Amino acid sequence: MNTFGRIFRISIYGTSHNSELGILIDGCPPGMEISIEEFSEEILRRSSGQQGTTPRQEDDIPFIKSGIYNGRTNGTPLLISFKNNNFKSADYEFGGFCRPGHADFAAAAKYKNFNDPNGGGQFSGRMTLPLVAAGVIAKKIIPDVEIKAEIYSIGNTRNINHEIEDAKKQLDSLGGIVQCNISGINPGLGEPFFDSVESLISHAVFSIPGVKAIEFGEGIRSASMRGSVFNDVFIDKSGKTGTNNSGGINGGITNGNDIYFRVYFRPASSIGKRQKTLNFETGEIQDFELKGRHDTCYVLRTPVIVEAVAAIVLADLTLLSAC
Amino acid sequence: MNTFGRIFRISIYGTSHNSELGILIDGCPPGMEISIEEFSEEILRRSSGQQGTTPRQEDDIPFIKSGIYNGRTNGTPLLISFKNNNFKSADYEFGGFCRPGHADFAAAAKYKNFNDPNGGGQFSGRMTLPLVAAGVIAKKIIPDVEIKAEIYSIGNTRNINHEIEDAKKQLDSLGGIVQCNISGINPGLGEPFFDSVESLISHAVFSIPGVKAIEFGEGIRSASMRGSVFNDVFIDKSGKTGTNNSGGINGGITNGNDIYFRVYFRPASSIGKRQKTLNFETGEIQDFELKGRHDTCYVLRTPVIVEAVAAIVLADLTLLSAC
Amino acid sequence: MNTFGRIFRISIYGTSHNSELGILIDGCPPGMEISIEEFSEEILRRSSGQQGTTPRQEDDIPFIKSGIYNGRTNGTPLLISFKNNNFKSADYEFGGFCRPGHADFAAAAKYKNFNDPNGGGQFSGRMTLPLVAAGVIAKKIIPDVEIKAEIYSIGNTRNINHEIEDAKKQLDSLGGIVQCNISGINPGLGEPFFDSVESLISHAVFSIPGVKAIEFGEGIRSASMRGSVFNDVFIDKSGKTGTNNSGGINGGITNGNDIYFRVYFRPASSIGKRQKTLNFETGEIQDFELKGRHDTCYVLRTPVIVEAVAAIVLADLTLLSAC
Amino acid sequence: MNTFGRIFRISIYGTSHNSELGILIDGCPPGMEISIEEFSEEILRRSSGQQGTTPRQEDDIPFIKSGIYNGRTNGTPLLISFKNNNFKSADYEFGGFCRPGHADFAAAAKYKNFNDPNGGGQFSGRMTLPLVAAGVIAKKIIPDVEIKAEIYSIGNTRNINHEIEDAKKQLDSLGGIVQCNISGINPGLGEPFFDSVESLISHAVFSIPGVKAIEFGEGIRSASMRGSVFNDVFIDKSGKTGTNNSGGINGGITNGNDIYFRVYFRPASSIGKRQKTLNFETGEIQDFELKGRHDTCYVLRTPVIVEAVAAIVLADLTLLSAC
Repeated sequence: MNTFGRIFRISIYGTSHNSELGILIDGCPPGMEISIEEFSEEILRRSSGQQGTTPRQEDDIPFIKSGIYNGRTNGTPLLISFKNNNFKSADYEFGGFCRPGHADFAAAAKYKNFNDPNGGGQFSGRMTLPLVAAGVIAKKIIPDVEIKAEIYSIGNTRNINHEIEDAKKQLDSLGGIVQCNISGINPGLGEPFFDSVESLISHAVFSIPGVKAIEFGEGIRSASMRGSVFNDVFIDKSGKTGTNNSGGINGGITNGNDIYFRVYFRPASSIGKRQKTLNFETGEIQDFELKGRHDTCYVLRTPVIVEAVAAIVLADLTLLSAC
Repeated sequence: MNTFGRIFRISIYGTSHNSELGILIDGCPPGMEISIEEFSEEILRRSSGQQGTTPRQEDDIPFIKSGIYNGRTNGTPLLISFKNNNFKSADYEFGGFCRPGHADFAAAAKYKNFNDPNGGGQFSGRMTLPLVAAGVIAKKIIPDVEIKAEIYSIGNTRNINHEIEDAKKQLDSLGGIVQCNISGINPGLGEPFFDSVESLISHAVFSIPGVKAIEFGEGIRSASMRGSVFNDVFIDKSGKTGTNNSGGINGGITNGNDIYFRVYFRPASSIGKRQKTLNFETGEIQDFELKGRHDTCYVLRTPVIVEAVAAIVLADLTLLSAC
Repeated sequence: MNTFGRIFRISIYGTSHNSELGILIDGCPPGMEISIEEFSEEILRRSSGQQGTTPRQEDDIPFIKSGIYNGRTNGTPLLISFKNNNFKSADYEFGGFCRPGHADFAAAAKYKNFNDPNGGGQFSGRMTLPLVAAGVIAKKIIPDVEIKAEIYSIGNTRNINHEIEDAKKQLDSLGGIVQCNISGINPGLGEPFFDSVESLISHAVFSIPGVKAIEFGEGIRSASMRGSVFNDVFIDKSGKTGTNNSGGINGGITNGNDIYFRVYFRPASSIGKRQKTLNFETGEIQDFELKGRHDTCYVLRTPVIVEAVAAIVLADLTLLSAC
Repeated sequence: MNTFGRIFRISIYGTSHNSELGILIDGCPPGMEISIEEFSEEILRRSSGQQGTTPRQEDDIPFIKSGIYNGRTNGTPLLISFKNNNFKSADYEFGGFCRPGHADFAAAAKYKNFNDPNGGGQFSGRMTLPLVAAGVIAKKIIPDVEIKAEIYSIGNTRNINHEIEDAKKQLDSLGGIVQCNISGINPGLGEPFFDSVESLISHAVFSIPGVKAIEFGEGIRSASMRGSVFNDVFIDKSGKTGTNNSGGINGGITNGNDIYFRVYFRPASSIGKRQKTLNFETGEIQDFELKGRHDTCYVLRTPVIVEAVAAIVLADLTLLSAC
């Protein structure tokens, strides 16, 4: 349930306010050089401290507890863990409220109230930190593939700075769109049905908290296009196409052109602004105000996470293609 | 690779022009009554013969080859097969061309040219017929859940008839949007990460040929909304919310409100209209004209397929929730 | 539940008295030449008609329903099915009895009495026919590996003919031991823990009806040996060892020496001889006499089945070793 | 590859001389009370310090890093880790030798020489410590089931003390047999084919280092028995049988009678006694003498490990039976 992948397999564990959280990575080829330093840049891209992101600061230092011998993978699973140092569980008592937009109500049903509410527990955005670490490893398995995700828009606009200022002032939060482009990919990866490239990437992307939509190529616009416009015609023998409306994937299989997709993030559920919602204890609709540290726009931190899950899928498909 | 699900597991086989195609279904509880008649309505919804769909007619009669004893499931896998009677393989020789928009090029790379090109082989829309059959079984496992998909728009419009007439006249094809609504679902299904409800439904939906985007709830609009607007506030103790922007899923888990999602289909790749594309033998850009039978708007046939894959996911999650 | 393997994956379906039974095989590399004739010899080895085996005759002709194009695998799953023609379901009504030694009682508990009792249903030895077919495919994936299983002993003896005559006369059945030797295997297959070669082969072997024990190398004797005697010492640089007590596997991994293992089959449960057992309806211990066609010594038919499941495991491990 | 189970899923990581080793356990129902103290007794049963076992002493204290909230499982995976404190890697340099009986040669082939040789790396018997921890959890999931493994024989004898003294004096090692009995199990667990109870238990048991054979019920003797003797006849309506030659399993499914099986362990490969074997550097057969700490009879420590893997299988099957 907390595992993804067939050869390159990742299993996530921990919660926001556990002593630690992390990821177990199986299927790494033996002999890969890995050093802690390689994680810094990617982890920094995800870290808070940017405008509009949460003031919670963590060390975010990865500890590789297994799988490495003399600086190289030894063929056994890598366990990469992170400590949770800087949290305030006291912030996570909400009286009779289930926070609007959050998983509190759904989780209580699933876990019969035994789940850890602090910091969102297993639903915390902090759980994406190990995903980023796994992404670092995945990218090393496919060195010729370049994966680049970036902010496409925030809220209604690409004039992002002003939008964030404004939302922050109003104690509100913002959604946004991240676009990811992948070049250097071999044709022939993926499967025609259940393991289509779109199936696997969307599976992984929707495990990132906050994602509510994904489109591959000109996916959304494609529904209103005609075939004669949408079809990507070939222009050379390598399979390069003139347009790339299909986002590099035909019939679920890579065609060698760039894969690209856009990910739609809803605004963060946690806002300082007062909301009216049900108090489950009193049975009445009441004012609800959330304490704690919140991102005005966590979306700014997500491009590296999107890259990570795309890399995880493509590393697995690449290893599988050798069978 | 051709299998999906954990308890309720389906494995698809066959191609468009094989003698048969079908699906193997494992994990059905024993004792379910199943008769051939129950498949008719769903299969009819998928069948051609509607305005704008292919003139190819098949019997589309399901043969249940195993898993049934005295009219009830006996606990062993169900094999459901369909015959391929009415095909013309001669239509599928394209000289030096890889058809634009199709998987011909990608498949040649993946299968080293050993794949069956006829009728699109394993990439054929005909492969969705066994999915519909599996959907019939899946729906019976979750009798209290109502799944209803319908056409939301075709091409640019909801005035669909005229749009189809026009495209047909121009030998072109049309995309469209299907909306699916699911009510009666228990809260607590799904997982916080890799097996989020969105992850699993999108995984299954993207295995339907032609799908290029999916949004859950107000997924696309959510990226431009603020948290105070997007958040669904609770209005009663059952967990019902006033709005349902999140589409019934929080943190990957069902919250008991209706699940809804929209699926974006690209226009069919096969069009009668002349296209300019590379001839891989001559190395020149040439005119390419496609013979054969084509759907102007195959999207009209997809709502029942979307329902089927949603039912498959929810049947599996429901069985899993008992563990 | 009815599936085995990671890349080369097989899924079994059907029962003894269904219209058909068979196997779905995923993960075959595209481009393998396959013809029906290749199955004949192996299927004949399994077939009845030998001394001491059941008089039931089936055509046992494999139908390859999918996965082949122009005589070669096309990269999609192979469905191989067999018809059930020659059965007498009337033989399978036992009054209030659960047959001693059979799965009748266990199956009733598992399947809540919805299982098909005829011919043993899914527990029938006939289910090994599709395993043999899958073995034929598996052997083609590892052409350099030679797998040879043969009868080691029947009942108490290696003087087999007389033993069978005697048991037949007494309307009784016989167990036996099959030894399997595998040469030409590369070193380095398998995993140190859960997917050790012994784990995977034993997993597959114990799915053959009637198997109750397995030993690898001198496994049983090894428990009473000392390390200085058991240890296989190396005698040349290829890794060849002087003795082969470990049966070619160290730490779960092949070492390049021959793999060998012995499989212990219990005698068939179905015997003509009168037995005393509980009548569940009357609640009394009564005489029970079994009609129908029975093998005196089904073990004679099993070497090819043992080879098949070994080949299935090794084909999968060989494909995996390329990742 | 390092994962086992379908609902109750365990993934093992680490090596003998890593900073830590452990196990990730997914699929525990939420709300189970778990305390560190519950592990002590089982871990003590596995620990060294008994007559004939290695003098290496470790703290063997389990650290539960995740999955617990307020003393109860919270529905997320449990990570249980153990520190490696007391090791001497210097003992693990063997010149040009691959140790006889060990996985050195096989591992070099598999991991292309990147594996960690120290303490046997991932092949170390120390890896069974996390299995024991997972067994503690598994047993709590099936509280009505009693699993009891014990030494059946050591070397040639049940007069164990003298045998160990003698082997120790001769710097040699001893194998042995462990018998495991399981009572209180429901009928109806397991599957007729690939997931037969025997398949799953043997799969798990053969992942314990040193196991070379397994028999269920009177498995080995059964091969020389006749059906009229082997068949277990029913004696009451609960399904109880007079004899239990089949070890509580018919057709792969539990029948409610006690499951029992015997596990055959080869003697430890590491012995102090001088052996003649190939020096891969010189290409000559030379004397080889092993330093380091060795068990004369590690088998004494294995009953709790056998119980653990049996519990892991049965916990998984029990959870699955609810689907």
